[in-house]
Amino acid sequence: MATAITSRSGHVGKLALHRTIASFRDWRRAVGLSRPDTTIGLVPTMGALHEGHLALVRQARRDNDVVVASIFVNPAQFGPHEDLERYPRQLAQDSRVLADLGVDHVLAPDADMVYGQHHTTYIDPQASLRKTAEGQSRPGHFRGVATIVTKLFNIVQPTNAYFGQKDAAQCVLIRRVTEDLNLDVTVHVLDTVRDADGLALSSRNAYLTESERRAAPVVYQALTNARSLFQQLENDDDDGGRENPCIDRDALVHVVRATLAAEPLVSEIQYVAVDCKATLQPLEHVHLKQGAVLSLACKIGNVRLIDNIIL
Amino acid sequence: MATAITSRSGHVGKLALHRTIASFRDWRRAVGLSRPDTTIGLVPTMGALHEGHLALVRQARRDNDVVVASIFVNPAQFGPHEDLERYPRQLAQDSRVLADLGVDHVLAPDADMVYGQHHTTYIDPQASLRKTAEGQSRPGHFRGVATIVTKLFNIVQPTNAYFGQKDAAQCVLIRRVTEDLNLDVTVHVLDTVRDADGLALSSRNAYLTESERRAAPVVYQALTNARSLFQQLENDDDDGGRENPCIDRDALVHVVRATLAAEPLVSEIQYVAVDCKATLQPLEHVHLKQGAVLSLACKIGNVRLIDNIIL
Repeated sequence: MATAITSRSGHVGKLALHRTIASFRDWRRAVGLSRPDTTIGLVPTMGALHEGHLALVRQARRDNDVVVASIFVNPAQFGPHEDLERYPRQLAQDSRVLADLGVDHVLAPDADMVYGQHHTTYIDPQASLRKTAEGQSRPGHFRGVATIVTKLFNIVQPTNAYFGQKDAAQCVLIRRVTEDLNLDVTVHVLDTVRDADGLALSSRNAYLTESERRAAPVVYQALTNARSLFQQLENDDDDGGRENPCIDRDALVHVVRATLAAEPLVSEIQYVAVDCKATLQPLEHVHLKQGAVLSLACKIGNVRLIDNIIL
Repeated sequence: MATAITSRSGHVGKLALHRTIASFRDWRRAVGLSRPDTTIGLVPTMGALHEGHLALVRQARRDNDVVVASIFVNPAQFGPHEDLERYPRQLAQDSRVLADLGVDHVLAPDADMVYGQHHTTYIDPQASLRKTAEGQSRPGHFRGVATIVTKLFNIVQPTNAYFGQKDAAQCVLIRRVTEDLNLDVTVHVLDTVRDADGLALSSRNAYLTESERRAAPVVYQALTNARSLFQQLENDDDDGGRENPCIDRDALVHVVRATLAAEPLVSEIQYVAVDCKATLQPLEHVHLKQGAVLSLACKIGNVRLIDNIIL
């Protein structure tokens, strides 16, 4: 029945699956009229769900009366040579997983319904974010993310929305857009979920060959090696001797790059960035009190992986 | 009392004046909870109200349970050398007029509340609209309009919103943005209101000197002269002889320009445009069945005036 279930709106257990925006809106308007104090939690996803998504869903389930997940592979956030076509799609399976976790509604419209024939309006993310490492690395990506998140917030009108820290730049962007466009939604960012060996969960991990998968924990290892350096600073400061202790960006980047370079399956290091936690602007020095986001993008074989930790 | 009334949130008769977004939101959330089926009509204005605005307010009053007017001179839609500083501001007077017409709420926040210190997100209007006559004439203007309208729709969450046909390009833009960003608002466009001599009402008419004001009806006269030409086409077609009769853009533009040129106080013709009614893309020929928007921008003395008619 999975095929029939996922080709049009219907039910998977108690979960209502909406394959059209109109079907979802009918429900949204009705609940707004009959139970206006209902709290609604939204977990926006591109499907191919892993434990990282499920952690967001569980938090949404704890916080809200109703939980909505969206499953939409957003063409606007993929570059022309990226993996839009190849991106895994498994709506029937995802819907069952979400139903088991007590999700009430899934919004999974087709792309030509989300971006109509005459669609031409995009959210222009702040120029400064476009200039961040991830923005430079994926031109147009943030514009696509900001546009789809605005659209989803307007369709779902959630009380709360949940995102994962793994996409650090995306989280800063979404907080910025939500505030700037006066969207009446509280944005929650949850910690990155990792496999036992440290690899951050990602739908793109499915592209890794077996040997690449074995090599992939080097990404997190590189970040934690740099963190050790930062923690030395903390330890050194325990006697409280130095005023405003800090570490140079270059020292952190060096450790990350050296760790990655030692793994032969790392085919490309796209960036290693040390940025302000609030604005994602690059930092020259990381002060003990202010910390930073340390993030990187690299390729293992042909698979692009990103990860970050908060210092 | 007018000064006190307008410097902070308060009441003008039964009208609630909100000088902060937070104050307005408190009311909006409360009404959403207590009377979720309330229909809300929004009339966005920059103040300096004239009969054109009031026609929108009266229609909103007829259509909705609650009427909200916003008064906000939006810096983002003014170019660097435009009349932002000089634009007339008369909040106390405007509030009294709106109270008399039965408006329930006025939202009139300061600019630094609408565009916070870190604001950097803008709506990028469709490239094609940016290339329209009015878009070329005022770079950045549509970006500013699209951004403030999106913000106001998100703050007010109205059922209906009302705009005047005088800003033809703006109306096409707002319909586009509303659809593209899935804003759950019905957009209404009402006819341009004119003085007895044909001059379209505009807050900027206040800039005209007495002699310029006497000359200004030439703007509408130019448009109606071109309309006469189009109507000839209609009359000629009464016998139903020709198949798909049409008139050249150049013929219409020529009549408009010739009429304007005959008035010595017209100091500059910025554009005369013949565009598709739905998309505002330029037309080479106007077909009797499809019609067009005929629009122009010119200066009388130092005052920029725009107007348009539907053919």
